[in-house]
Amino acid sequence: MFQIKARRGERVGSRDIYQALRDQISEGVYGADGLLPSSRALATELGVSRTTVTVAYEQLAAEGFIEVRHGMRPRVGTAAVSLPKNSIVPKSSSGAPRLSSYGERLRTLPAPTGEPQHNLIADFRYGDLAAADFPTLPWKRAIVAAIAQRPPRLTYDDARGTRELRVALQRYLWRARMLRCETEQIIVVNGSQQALDLCARLLLDRGDRFVVENPCYAIARHAFAATGAKAISVAVDKDGLNTALLSKTKARLAYVTPSHQFPLGSVMPIGRRQRLLEWARKTNAYIVEDDYDSEYRYDIKPVPPLHVLGDGQNVIYVGTVSKTLSPTLRIGYLVVPPHLETVFCAAKHLVDRHTPVLEQSALATLLESGAYDSHVRKVRRRNGERRATLLNALRRAFGETIAIEGADAGLHVVVWFRDIPLAMEQKLIGRAAEKGVGIHSVAPLYAPALQERKSIRVGLIMGYASLDARRIERGVELLAQVVANLRSA
Amino acid sequence: MFQIKARRGERVGSRDIYQALRDQISEGVYGADGLLPSSRALATELGVSRTTVTVAYEQLAAEGFIEVRHGMRPRVGTAAVSLPKNSIVPKSSSGAPRLSSYGERLRTLPAPTGEPQHNLIADFRYGDLAAADFPTLPWKRAIVAAIAQRPPRLTYDDARGTRELRVALQRYLWRARMLRCETEQIIVVNGSQQALDLCARLLLDRGDRFVVENPCYAIARHAFAATGAKAISVAVDKDGLNTALLSKTKARLAYVTPSHQFPLGSVMPIGRRQRLLEWARKTNAYIVEDDYDSEYRYDIKPVPPLHVLGDGQNVIYVGTVSKTLSPTLRIGYLVVPPHLETVFCAAKHLVDRHTPVLEQSALATLLESGAYDSHVRKVRRRNGERRATLLNALRRAFGETIAIEGADAGLHVVVWFRDIPLAMEQKLIGRAAEKGVGIHSVAPLYAPALQERKSIRVGLIMGYASLDARRIERGVELLAQVVANLRSA
Repeated sequence: MFQIKARRGERVGSRDIYQALRDQISEGVYGADGLLPSSRALATELGVSRTTVTVAYEQLAAEGFIEVRHGMRPRVGTAAVSLPKNSIVPKSSSGAPRLSSYGERLRTLPAPTGEPQHNLIADFRYGDLAAADFPTLPWKRAIVAAIAQRPPRLTYDDARGTRELRVALQRYLWRARMLRCETEQIIVVNGSQQALDLCARLLLDRGDRFVVENPCYAIARHAFAATGAKAISVAVDKDGLNTALLSKTKARLAYVTPSHQFPLGSVMPIGRRQRLLEWARKTNAYIVEDDYDSEYRYDIKPVPPLHVLGDGQNVIYVGTVSKTLSPTLRIGYLVVPPHLETVFCAAKHLVDRHTPVLEQSALATLLESGAYDSHVRKVRRRNGERRATLLNALRRAFGETIAIEGADAGLHVVVWFRDIPLAMEQKLIGRAAEKGVGIHSVAPLYAPALQERKSIRVGLIMGYASLDARRIERGVELLAQVVANLRSA
Repeated sequence: MFQIKARRGERVGSRDIYQALRDQISEGVYGADGLLPSSRALATELGVSRTTVTVAYEQLAAEGFIEVRHGMRPRVGTAAVSLPKNSIVPKSSSGAPRLSSYGERLRTLPAPTGEPQHNLIADFRYGDLAAADFPTLPWKRAIVAAIAQRPPRLTYDDARGTRELRVALQRYLWRARMLRCETEQIIVVNGSQQALDLCARLLLDRGDRFVVENPCYAIARHAFAATGAKAISVAVDKDGLNTALLSKTKARLAYVTPSHQFPLGSVMPIGRRQRLLEWARKTNAYIVEDDYDSEYRYDIKPVPPLHVLGDGQNVIYVGTVSKTLSPTLRIGYLVVPPHLETVFCAAKHLVDRHTPVLEQSALATLLESGAYDSHVRKVRRRNGERRATLLNALRRAFGETIAIEGADAGLHVVVWFRDIPLAMEQKLIGRAAEKGVGIHSVAPLYAPALQERKSIRVGLIMGYASLDARRIERGVELLAQVVANLRSA
């Protein structure tokens, strides 16, 4: 009767007995009287100790599968009616339970890429950094020190982030960005994406309108649009978002990258900044200012953020270390107006309590010791060299057949191929991948309705921060071969 | 004319000049002709190098504050009209821009506690762990190894979590919880709170209904209620959620803790589990099964989760390492039905891209090396000792005047003071705090409408996992003094 198989040739244990009996009970094996063998009898039958059986019986009893009374044989629990088996259960006619409207909107978004690819000769994917640039030693030291220095009890920390890190960020923002704020205005988050998601949730309702640059960072647009709010895409030119186009626009929020427009690279001049702030004040809208890579300017010093110009009531500033340390650390921060401190803190608490403490502590150490600033200077220099290598290689390979945008700052450029029509793009990307070169279209960053009309030529967003000079040059060389083949075809 | 102050006694630098000029331009100092001094003249006036001035001018030009043409004096930019100053801007009549309805609902929630308190003699706060229990050495080694072993490029990882960790969790869930799943069903998140928040967003709309146990984990209820859905609180008894009360309830989702009801500690027997699953199938609802502390059972082996009993289509399993490693790490995981894999992955990607990679890597190492399992055995033993110390101390101090619930499992007990009316609770908590003892009421865990009716006596949720024997005993002793004083008053 007892077909109990031990796992992997081991002896039969309590768990095997437990599981076999549970399955049998569920299948209704003990239908009539519902009596199981006594623990003694079963132990003898299976050649195991009585304790082994008793442990299984106690577990089954605790879960209600059986009822055990002293001196009597165990009986199937009255509640343990035979379980409907998986395959027998008819699916409800409506199929799986429905998702929320948020969930349904997410289904319409492009699927996120899965595991990262590490097998290409040169992947110009934007956002990646070279591991060799990471300040391994200072970070390791800071993490190890943080592990050693923790307080005697491990407890949920402040939802806004550790006091230590908020103080360090406050000083850094003043030192590096001329941005003055109180530590209470700072909310540490898991990368800038969480900052944008919190803004979306707290400030947008279904049916509201929000302004985004066109083109813009696509997953920012997705985060705002996922609330059910409607995107108003406003064109950018060489001075960033064209604020003249805003005048008649009513919206709850504008998401902008004034210090370095993503992806086209322009810096928004003071006049437009003022008009943007005035528009926000007049229409009672928030501005979400994403200062994602302000550390990387090769021509001039970093531009102070929009946040500094306004009265601090309408601007939410978003910063990150994903472009200076690593995108895998997941640390970013918000500076919110004082009247939003409480609700952002409550939201962060509700969505995931707080950002991991060890990383916060390590980042605070780097910021306060000066190691972060000197690291930034080092990687700025290195990325300046990479940029020069890429620009030279592109010029050599393509000459006047390309136009390059956004080369003054950041970690990427946009390259327009004057003579390759957009229709060829997928073929170009596929052929390049076959040669081991990862290239990425700028088209998905345009508003969906405008993607076809605006970018009639092939445009690539080429990130260089993860590549050494050799790979950059080799990658461009291989890309040139692919392009030449396409042209001659 | 030029009142430029260097910072902290340093020499005047480009930044000081930049800032002074920017302020002056903003204040309309250069009103008439808009001409600034030549860089040479200003350098002489300030006693700095001409380059120092040029750098400031270039920065101002880049931002549009001034226009510079070769050989001419710089002129205030046409766009740089005088900026409205902070204090002058009249606040819009409607005050600050309004929040989303989600944001407004968050305003009604109790404010999260800020920075953790470390100054009490004994804080019985639930959820805290002793730092001495943390596996410092294995964790440090695993983190350091992860820093050293990273791939050559730092890139956003899989939104579901690293493959490595999902494989390790898949094995762990089978080994420890008899739960079989595919790695694609696992989503690594920032602690179980993020798991609950993702479920809330993806499965609930405003006006929907969700079932929670009464009492229950309060911030879980908050996370679901923040969507605008309505909580249906169902009473629990010694067998957990009373499923008989469910029969006529329609809801989209039920949030349950069947393995160890929070906070009252009951284990849901098989019959109720089946009824719960049947209810979910019939009403087309999801069950969110929070298995928050299954590792801690002192009487019997861990109970296999509800997830194992069902057909896997309606149950979302939530696990965490906050109770075994540390609440400050922020790692948890979901096991979702196959038809929800894609949308949970998309949501995780949109809310914060992915959970930090180093911690994921360290946890995977601990799980695969066996260090996690042996750590769990160690802390289970230690917490069993703490529990015994607490129960003994409570019996000694309070005898039959208290009733204790939920002592078979977990990291806390609920203590009911038979002879202290609820009206005295705040006084009791306040007096205890004065003596250095942190105690916490169970009342907020009840549904708001029922809080007064149900808990007519004082009930405390007493966590012990962060305290050593001495503090537990001293804490109870001091609490007994406070109670004695209250009774005699």
